[in-house]
Amino acid sequence: RVNPDIASERQTASFCVETLTAVLDGGAERTRRRRAVVEAIECDPVFSRENQYFQSQNERYEAAVRKAVHLQKKMHEMGWTEDGPEYKYIYRALAGDVAFLLHRIFMRSISMLGSDKQIAKWIPLATQYQLIGSYAQTELGHGTYLQGLETTAVFDITTQEFILNTPKISAMKWWPGDMGRSATHTVAFAQLYIHGQCYGVHPFIVQIRSLRDHSLCPGVTAGDIGPKMSFEHTDNGYLLLQNVRVPRENMLNKFCEVQPDGTYVRRGSQQINYFTMTAVRISLISDEVIIPLMKACTIAVRYSVVRRQSKLKPGEEEAKILDYQTQQEKLLPQLAAAYAFHFISDYLQELFDKGYREIQRKNFDTLPELHAFSSGFKAMVTQYCTSAVEICLRACGGHGYSLLSGLPSLYTKILASCIYEGENTILLLQTARFLTKCFTAARAGQPVPPSVAYLAAVKPGTCPAKSKLDFLSPDVYTEAYQHTAVRLISSTAAKLQDLIQSGVQKHDAWNQCTVQLAQAAKAHCHYITVKNFAETVEKLETKAGIQKIMKHLCDLFALHGIFSNAGVFLHDGYISGAQMDMVTASYLDLLAIIRKDAVPLVDAFDLTDKSLNSALGSYDGQVYQRLYEWAQKSPTNTQMSPAYERYLKPLLHNSLSKL
Amino acid sequence: RVNPDIASERQTASFCVETLTAVLDGGAERTRRRRAVVEAIECDPVFSRENQYFQSQNERYEAAVRKAVHLQKKMHEMGWTEDGPEYKYIYRALAGDVAFLLHRIFMRSISMLGSDKQIAKWIPLATQYQLIGSYAQTELGHGTYLQGLETTAVFDITTQEFILNTPKISAMKWWPGDMGRSATHTVAFAQLYIHGQCYGVHPFIVQIRSLRDHSLCPGVTAGDIGPKMSFEHTDNGYLLLQNVRVPRENMLNKFCEVQPDGTYVRRGSQQINYFTMTAVRISLISDEVIIPLMKACTIAVRYSVVRRQSKLKPGEEEAKILDYQTQQEKLLPQLAAAYAFHFISDYLQELFDKGYREIQRKNFDTLPELHAFSSGFKAMVTQYCTSAVEICLRACGGHGYSLLSGLPSLYTKILASCIYEGENTILLLQTARFLTKCFTAARAGQPVPPSVAYLAAVKPGTCPAKSKLDFLSPDVYTEAYQHTAVRLISSTAAKLQDLIQSGVQKHDAWNQCTVQLAQAAKAHCHYITVKNFAETVEKLETKAGIQKIMKHLCDLFALHGIFSNAGVFLHDGYISGAQMDMVTASYLDLLAIIRKDAVPLVDAFDLTDKSLNSALGSYDGQVYQRLYEWAQKSPTNTQMSPAYERYLKPLLHNSLSKL
Repeated sequence: RVNPDIASERQTASFCVETLTAVLDGGAERTRRRRAVVEAIECDPVFSRENQYFQSQNERYEAAVRKAVHLQKKMHEMGWTEDGPEYKYIYRALAGDVAFLLHRIFMRSISMLGSDKQIAKWIPLATQYQLIGSYAQTELGHGTYLQGLETTAVFDITTQEFILNTPKISAMKWWPGDMGRSATHTVAFAQLYIHGQCYGVHPFIVQIRSLRDHSLCPGVTAGDIGPKMSFEHTDNGYLLLQNVRVPRENMLNKFCEVQPDGTYVRRGSQQINYFTMTAVRISLISDEVIIPLMKACTIAVRYSVVRRQSKLKPGEEEAKILDYQTQQEKLLPQLAAAYAFHFISDYLQELFDKGYREIQRKNFDTLPELHAFSSGFKAMVTQYCTSAVEICLRACGGHGYSLLSGLPSLYTKILASCIYEGENTILLLQTARFLTKCFTAARAGQPVPPSVAYLAAVKPGTCPAKSKLDFLSPDVYTEAYQHTAVRLISSTAAKLQDLIQSGVQKHDAWNQCTVQLAQAAKAHCHYITVKNFAETVEKLETKAGIQKIMKHLCDLFALHGIFSNAGVFLHDGYISGAQMDMVTASYLDLLAIIRKDAVPLVDAFDLTDKSLNSALGSYDGQVYQRLYEWAQKSPTNTQMSPAYERYLKPLLHNSLSKL
Repeated sequence: RVNPDIASERQTASFCVETLTAVLDGGAERTRRRRAVVEAIECDPVFSRENQYFQSQNERYEAAVRKAVHLQKKMHEMGWTEDGPEYKYIYRALAGDVAFLLHRIFMRSISMLGSDKQIAKWIPLATQYQLIGSYAQTELGHGTYLQGLETTAVFDITTQEFILNTPKISAMKWWPGDMGRSATHTVAFAQLYIHGQCYGVHPFIVQIRSLRDHSLCPGVTAGDIGPKMSFEHTDNGYLLLQNVRVPRENMLNKFCEVQPDGTYVRRGSQQINYFTMTAVRISLISDEVIIPLMKACTIAVRYSVVRRQSKLKPGEEEAKILDYQTQQEKLLPQLAAAYAFHFISDYLQELFDKGYREIQRKNFDTLPELHAFSSGFKAMVTQYCTSAVEICLRACGGHGYSLLSGLPSLYTKILASCIYEGENTILLLQTARFLTKCFTAARAGQPVPPSVAYLAAVKPGTCPAKSKLDFLSPDVYTEAYQHTAVRLISSTAAKLQDLIQSGVQKHDAWNQCTVQLAQAAKAHCHYITVKNFAETVEKLETKAGIQKIMKHLCDLFALHGIFSNAGVFLHDGYISGAQMDMVTASYLDLLAIIRKDAVPLVDAFDLTDKSLNSALGSYDGQVYQRLYEWAQKSPTNTQMSPAYERYLKPLLHNSLSKL
């Protein structure tokens, strides 16, 4: 029952798919464990995503709550722990379609910012869903600029309470997940005032709904913020507080405390808080970004070998659309990117783990580098992969536009990753600030972190490639990326310096350079990604054809980047026009080579039909049959519309005698 | 009640907004007529789009049918005609959110392809909605390649009927609008067979539902194809035909006929059919693409002067986000593009009208040029504007991601324009085929259409600009675009020639050049757009500051294009690296200049709050208030969820004694 057009693609694989899957998982044993979790989840009807594309926001929310509550039982039954690798596999199997993710952030913030006493009080209850928490930071008027938050918490010494208020509409909490309909409690961030003095933003545990009947607590106004492009299952909420009082001990007080007499005490370092954001940014890259891109590639590539349209050669049968160069050029670079980013994600995770070990030894030296890395890569990878998913969607033509293809929901969800956990432009500028600092230090001979040591080297020169084959050398293209990153960072740093020296105020000068600074930060991340891909390929096992096909993908990723950003490579003549023609030739040649392994390369992602939830992307390639079957279940077919009786019948009856 | 942050933007306009609106409308009289129509539509509650973001596909469909039926009455009352300019204004005021648009194509195809007798029979009934028609061309397995359609129509000489069949699942009609739930009839395209011989694809009028009770006719299976990324109001449908018989006179027979004895007769030219597609592609550019981009720009620009976030200068109040260079660089080029494409759309319409007049005089010489133009510009403009709308959406951060911003629905709808009426890559390749032919002819000294005469000129040279100010000369940048278009077309034509001469088969050679051919076609369209913008600016009235601000926008559009496609300009050294720095400097300078007029420039689009349907984009800038008011009406707030009673209550009650 496998469509012969897709079956034939698998017979000619140049490598062993199972071996590649194990490489991606980090070993065959991990593949086995992952599959066991996925199977346990997928055979449980509560977790089914069937008919999901037909559900309303209300239906999706209810299903997500049901899943969350059921999952808790299931985890207990199966012996899966929150901290174990299983949780990652569960999340992947559920496609994130489960409630109470912000409840987890609620718990994490108490664990990180709360005292032992606070942890002992709240965490056991939260773990068993005896309360539902949320994390109320963002306001209607403030997202990225946390210092600007307007919610207030005034300490009332007479009652030993904080009085929380939403002083104006823009101060309303807006967006927090799990808050619109579920949460009984939240960690709310507010400006702390004691005796009229402001001490900045602090976190407070606030009860917002009754544990008895779920009604809103006195002084609390809360609700759902309404429909969004995706996340129908999440009750993103709003929250208004009017003289809501919480006891003194509800301020999370591991790092700072208000004493009974109103004395404010700060303890230890708050730097570690940024580290949480770093961790979240790094983990979202794999869970929320790379997996969706792998899904989109799987769907689009499989569809493109089943879909036949028009003729490549007169007289022959219609061609598979993946045999057209333009279709290859749409999809295969995205496939290469999925691999490139999978490997960089592993690299970032290692960097993070190493940094974390240092921090546990009270060595905070790696924090700036980790912050810059997590910011820049979060921005670069989310932006790249969002475009990539969109390209996959468009490449499937009309059928890609149907929700049943699975592609629209992948796109609308991944798009959010460009916005949440730090808006991308702002993140890139933070990376750029780090890079310009390191650049200045490096050029002054001062020590810089190893990842940016390349900025010290002054190697003007030009690209040594003499033929299109030279551009298949990782040294050649990695050098080109490095050269470009250095040039963009140094020229922007020089512009900044010039502006300041010509009398422009520092902040104005910075603003006037931001377009170029963001570009420089992206170039840096692109360079590191290419370099890491090339290094990963070198270390791969040579057996089973894995290294060879990965080398092709690495070449493709690198040359696609040069081809599509030709300007930055040509600008100073590092690559000449003639060399760019060689890049183009090699790039187009690679498309035809990788085309042959396209289906095995997406099969290696090992995504089940249920997790793809796509009428176009199933393993068996029965595209048209499935589209037809699924469409028939749509409420537009199963529910009668009153439109005929109300509006059409009277008109149509007029022609009964005439036709 | 206008937010002072937006009010102040309007006080400093460098030009008269009302005058610019009149320029865009083609005269103050047209502005007056358009406003009268918009007002009549907007004051009628049937056409309200309030709460639209909360509606299900079924609710949207019902509302769209109601609107369509009501509109017919309204047009009669108001004396608006289908052919008058009012229809365009109506469509704009309704944002296309009305049923029976495919019914109009049904009528158009009968009018164009039917005999006088067929027209006399069907058109009066259709005009009064005494039947609802659809247009069934696309099949599950065939979209762009019409010759590949699989539906059959076999002539049965004994009964003088055609027997229509869907021989396999991929032959099912799929996507036709108005067919899923509404249509009683359709024009179905099928391969005509007479005495076992195939005569190719022909159109047949087929009844699919009863006029009495709307039940499906014998042999007909039809339904809705389910949810899509947008177009919830349209019942895109599927259709299976099993031995459905239609009388001989139901084949549309203006251009060809099957006589009673089975003789097939072809009359006249079918070339005119392509002309319909040309007309549709040109008209969709303004209605479906440019208006949505204008809306997205209006929403994003207005929001960006109300939203304040972070500080540009320490100690000052938070800055309007439009004062950040990166935000300007996101939005202002899109604003310039909206103007550029508005003017090119006018130009295409004129070209079309001129061509049509020629065709009425039986002169078909302009057909290839018009086909190439409409194809290339449809592809280029839809792709550009889809990206532009997405940029506007992302630039509004989290709030842009809420459906209430209006941006998600603009994006999901405009995205479809890249796919329907010809998939963009295929269209670009058709333009490229025309360009390479013209290039070869022009270089051989043969005559070519005026729009491509530039291909004849061989002007290698380099760009004469010596300072950043030189790049504000339309001659300088228009020449650069022209040079690049010629280079891309000529180098790709040369590659094609080389491949063929080296023994590669013609169709393989073509396929191997398609990535570059598509790029060349885009460069051609980009060049014409820049040239037309510059010429339009020259002819504009100098009064009221209009010409000056339009000149800035033209410069911005042109320099943005060079900045973001730097590679193609640098490739052969026409523009040097040093000159590219000048381009960048001028480009960034322009952002700061146009920033000052950004709000008046979107106000000039004259889009009412109702037509924007955006909590972020209203004229008064009351962003936060409106988001809050609208959110409260969401069904996620107005309908109780059973999730609490079913899943949460038992868990939460456990903690009652503990908290």
